[in-house]
Amino acid sequence: MNEMTFQLGTDGTKCLYEQIYEHVKKEIKAGKLLSGEKLPSTRFLAEYLQVARSTVDYAYGQLLSEGYIEARPCKGYFVCPTEELLQLDGIDQTEESLFGSCIEGKTGGRALGQTEERSWGIAREACSSFETDTELHGKGGFLVDFSPYEIDMSGFPFSVWKKITKNILTFANSELFARGEAQGDQGLRCTIARYLHSSRGVNCRPDQIIVGAGNDYLLMLLEKVLGRHVRIAMENPTYKRSYQIFRSFAYQITTVDMDESGMRSDKLEQAEVSTAYVMPSHQFPTGTVMPIGRRMELLKWAAGGADRYLIEDDYDSEFRFHGKPIPALQASDRHGKVIYIGTFSKAIAPAIRISFMVLPDSLLEKYLRKCAFYSCTVSRIDQSILNEFIRDGYFERHLNKMRKLYRAKHELLLECLQPLRDRFVISGENAGLHLLLNSRCGAAERELVQAAAFRQVRVYGLSESMVEDASHSTAVLLGFGGLSEEKIREGAELLRKVW
Amino acid sequence: MNEMTFQLGTDGTKCLYEQIYEHVKKEIKAGKLLSGEKLPSTRFLAEYLQVARSTVDYAYGQLLSEGYIEARPCKGYFVCPTEELLQLDGIDQTEESLFGSCIEGKTGGRALGQTEERSWGIAREACSSFETDTELHGKGGFLVDFSPYEIDMSGFPFSVWKKITKNILTFANSELFARGEAQGDQGLRCTIARYLHSSRGVNCRPDQIIVGAGNDYLLMLLEKVLGRHVRIAMENPTYKRSYQIFRSFAYQITTVDMDESGMRSDKLEQAEVSTAYVMPSHQFPTGTVMPIGRRMELLKWAAGGADRYLIEDDYDSEFRFHGKPIPALQASDRHGKVIYIGTFSKAIAPAIRISFMVLPDSLLEKYLRKCAFYSCTVSRIDQSILNEFIRDGYFERHLNKMRKLYRAKHELLLECLQPLRDRFVISGENAGLHLLLNSRCGAAERELVQAAAFRQVRVYGLSESMVEDASHSTAVLLGFGGLSEEKIREGAELLRKVW
Repeated sequence: MNEMTFQLGTDGTKCLYEQIYEHVKKEIKAGKLLSGEKLPSTRFLAEYLQVARSTVDYAYGQLLSEGYIEARPCKGYFVCPTEELLQLDGIDQTEESLFGSCIEGKTGGRALGQTEERSWGIAREACSSFETDTELHGKGGFLVDFSPYEIDMSGFPFSVWKKITKNILTFANSELFARGEAQGDQGLRCTIARYLHSSRGVNCRPDQIIVGAGNDYLLMLLEKVLGRHVRIAMENPTYKRSYQIFRSFAYQITTVDMDESGMRSDKLEQAEVSTAYVMPSHQFPTGTVMPIGRRMELLKWAAGGADRYLIEDDYDSEFRFHGKPIPALQASDRHGKVIYIGTFSKAIAPAIRISFMVLPDSLLEKYLRKCAFYSCTVSRIDQSILNEFIRDGYFERHLNKMRKLYRAKHELLLECLQPLRDRFVISGENAGLHLLLNSRCGAAERELVQAAAFRQVRVYGLSESMVEDASHSTAVLLGFGGLSEEKIREGAELLRKVW
Repeated sequence: MNEMTFQLGTDGTKCLYEQIYEHVKKEIKAGKLLSGEKLPSTRFLAEYLQVARSTVDYAYGQLLSEGYIEARPCKGYFVCPTEELLQLDGIDQTEESLFGSCIEGKTGGRALGQTEERSWGIAREACSSFETDTELHGKGGFLVDFSPYEIDMSGFPFSVWKKITKNILTFANSELFARGEAQGDQGLRCTIARYLHSSRGVNCRPDQIIVGAGNDYLLMLLEKVLGRHVRIAMENPTYKRSYQIFRSFAYQITTVDMDESGMRSDKLEQAEVSTAYVMPSHQFPTGTVMPIGRRMELLKWAAGGADRYLIEDDYDSEFRFHGKPIPALQASDRHGKVIYIGTFSKAIAPAIRISFMVLPDSLLEKYLRKCAFYSCTVSRIDQSILNEFIRDGYFERHLNKMRKLYRAKHELLLECLQPLRDRFVISGENAGLHLLLNSRCGAAERELVQAAAFRQVRVYGLSESMVEDASHSTAVLLGFGGLSEEKIREGAELLRKVW
C-alpha cells in the first residue's frame, strides 16, 4: 500500500490518530485504496510512522465503526465497498464557494479534533450505562420491546455534541439570542441544502427550506400554506402519526390501494384528491421502496393539476442497508410538485427537535405571502449546533457508524427469525429499523401480539398503522433500532417458541 | 443595623460577595430591613466582616442593579420599597414539598454561584460590544428606531445561561436526548406552575401547562383544541401578530370596542362570539390595564356559555413600573374559562423559544383526547436550562434587574417627551416597553411617521396594530426596550424638533 506514505503533521491542529483516520478515509473515498484491498497491519504502520500502536488501533477502530474497512479474523484489515457509504462531499468548507453567500457563521469547529479521542471514550461510557438501566428492566413490563419507533441512543455522538455546544456558547454573542429568521438561519439552511443534494439528490435553494421544531409542526405550517380544505390520499397502512395530524386538520383523507411498488397511480387518479402523502424511499410500515417507474407515474399525476402536490416524508432514508442509496422522489421532480419533509430526530436523537421542509416555488410564494410571520420554532443556539455538526463532517461519520450498527442488528434479527420463514413472509429487508412479518397461515394479528406478550415480548400489530380495514390483519412489526444484540437474540428466541 | 451581624460561611459553596448579597436581600424581603433604612457604608461593613471593600461593593452593586437598594449621593445606600419587586418565594427548593412529585430532576445548580462574579463581568462586556455595533448604525437606515418589539439584550444573563448549559450537558445522559413528554418535561412544568402562582397569582396544576416553541405555535395548537370554527373577539387596536395568526385559521374575527378599561363587556355580549382575546395586564398597543370590575364582567360573560373562553395573552406582565404587580385575569377565574398564554421570549431573550399555555380543565380534556400526539416542540436540553434558570433564582434576579433598567429608560423617555405634552396625550405610563402618543390637534399618523423618518427616527403608527378603521389614526407608538439612554435622548430631541 504505497499510498500510505503520508506525512504526519506537527502543527498540533489534529491529533495523530485523527490524521491517520482522515488519510485512509480520503484514500478510500478517492478510489486510491480499492474495495477488498488489504491495509498494512497496525504494528507495521505504527513502526513506519513512529507512533504508538494504540494510535493506529484507534484510527482503524474508527474506520471500522464507520464501515470504511472491515476486519477479517487472522487476516487483517480490508477496504469495504464504498458505494453504500454516505459521502457528503459537497458539505465541508472546501466547496463553500458553491453557495457563496453562506460562508459566514463558521466558528472554530476544527479545534474539536484535538480532544475527540477522550470525548468519544466518555460518550460511550455515559450512554451504555443508561442503556443498561432501561434495557434491563424493559419497558412497560416487557422483557423485550420490538418497538419500531425507538432508535439506538448508545450511538449518539454525545461528547461531540457537547463540545460543539460549549464551543458555540463560548463564541456566542447576543445576536445568537436575538430573534432569527422565520424560515431558520441562513447558514443552517445552506448546510441542509448541500446535505440534501449530496445525500438525497434533492435539488433546492436554501430559501426553499423551512426549518421547524419537528415534523408535526411543519405539517401544521403546511396546512396554513395549502389551505384548509385539502383532499389528501394516504396509503393503507401508513404512518399513523401523520394520519392523526391530517385528521386533526379539516383534511378529507382518502386511502389509496398499494401494490408491491407502493401507492397505485391508477387508484390515485380515481381518488379525486389534490395531495398525496407518500414515503417512497421506505414506506412505513410495509418497507416498500418505490421503483422509478411508479415514481414517474406519481409525478405525472401531480403534473396533471395546478393544485396537485406530493408530500414526500423521507423519515428514515439514511438507513438503507443494501445497494446504493436511492435518491428522493424530489430529485426527479421537474414541475415543482414535491413537498419534501425530513427530520434529524431519527438520525441523531429524538430530542433534537429539528425538522425541515422543502417547498416548491409555487408553494414558497404562498408561504411567503400567508405564513412568513410565524416565528421559527427552533432556537438559534440549536440551529448553530446542528449546522456545525453537519458541516464539520460529524453527521456523515455518525450516519455511517449508525448504518453499520443498524445493519448488524438488522442482519442478526433476520438470521434469528430464519426458522420462522416457513410460517411468515418477512419483508422490509433492505432498509429501515423494522421488519414486517406476515403470517402465511392467516393467524390473526391479535393472537400473534398476545402470544408474544405472554412471553413478555412486545410486538406491534400492523393494524396500529392501518387507517381502515384493520380487523383482518395477520401481520406484525418488529423494530430493532433501540434493542441491543442480546435483546434481539433473546426476543427472537422467545418468539420462535411461542409462534 | 444590628441584623447585619451574620457569619460568613467558610464551606466554600458560596463566595463572600454572594453571601453578603443573599443576606441583605433576605433581610429586606423578610421586612427586617425596612424601606428607607440606611445600610452600613461599604467601608464599615468591609472592616466589620474582615473582607475586601471591593467584595462589599460588588454585593451592593448587585442589590442596586436588582432594585433592592438605592444609592443617594453623599448619603449612602438605602433600602428600597419592596412591594414592587418580584419575589418568587414559592420557587426555590425549600418549598418543593408544595409539589411533592416534582422534586426529581434537580442537578447541582448551586455550584454556579462560585464563578458568577467573573461570569457576570464577561457577560456585560460581550453584550455591550454587540449593542454598540447595531446601535451605532441603527436599523434599516434609521438613526433611532423606537421599535416596540425590541428588548434590551445587554441585560441578558449570558454567562449564567452558558454556565447552566455547560453544567447540564456535563451531567446529561442519553435520556435528555430521548423523546420527552408531549406537554413538556414535568420538572419545567412544575417550576412554571410555581412561578406563575408566585408572580402572577395564576392557579394551575403542572399538568394543565403545555410548553411550546413560541406563542405562534401554541395558538396553532389551541386551534386544534378549540376546533376550527371559532368566532373570536379582539380589541381594536390589538396585537397584530395574533390577529394575523387567527386570520390564518378559519376563525371569524369580530372587533369589539374598547374604552379606558379595555374591551367593553356589553359590546362583547352583542358580538355573538365564543372566545375573546385580551391582554388585561397591559393591552398592546394602548397600554390599558384592565381594572378588576371589567375583569369580573368578562369572566361573567365567559361563564354564561359552555363554549365561551377568554384567551389571556400575558405577554409582558413582568414589566410593570409603578405599584404592586397586578395578578393575571386567570387568578380571578373560578369557572375554568381562561386560557392563559405566556412567553419567556420577552423577559429573557427572543431566541429562547419557550412559551407556555395553561388550559382550563374542560379544554385540557379535549387536548388530551385530540392533540396529545403532537410532540413537544422544545428540546429537552433547552427545557432543562430554563428550569434551572428559574428554579435557582436567576430569573427573579434577571427580572428585577431588567425592570429597574426598563423603568429608568421609561422615565427618561417620559421626561424627554415632556415638552410634547401640549401637543400629545401620552399613555401607557405604568407598564410595558412602549408609550402611546396621540396627537391633540388631530395630526395624521402618516404625517407624524413621515416627519420623524425625515429626521431618521423610526416611530410606529398605531394603525399597524389596527384591524379595521385604521385610516383615521392620529397616534404613534414609541418603544424604548432596545434603545440605550443616549439613543432615547437623541431620538426624543429629534422628535421635539420635527413635531
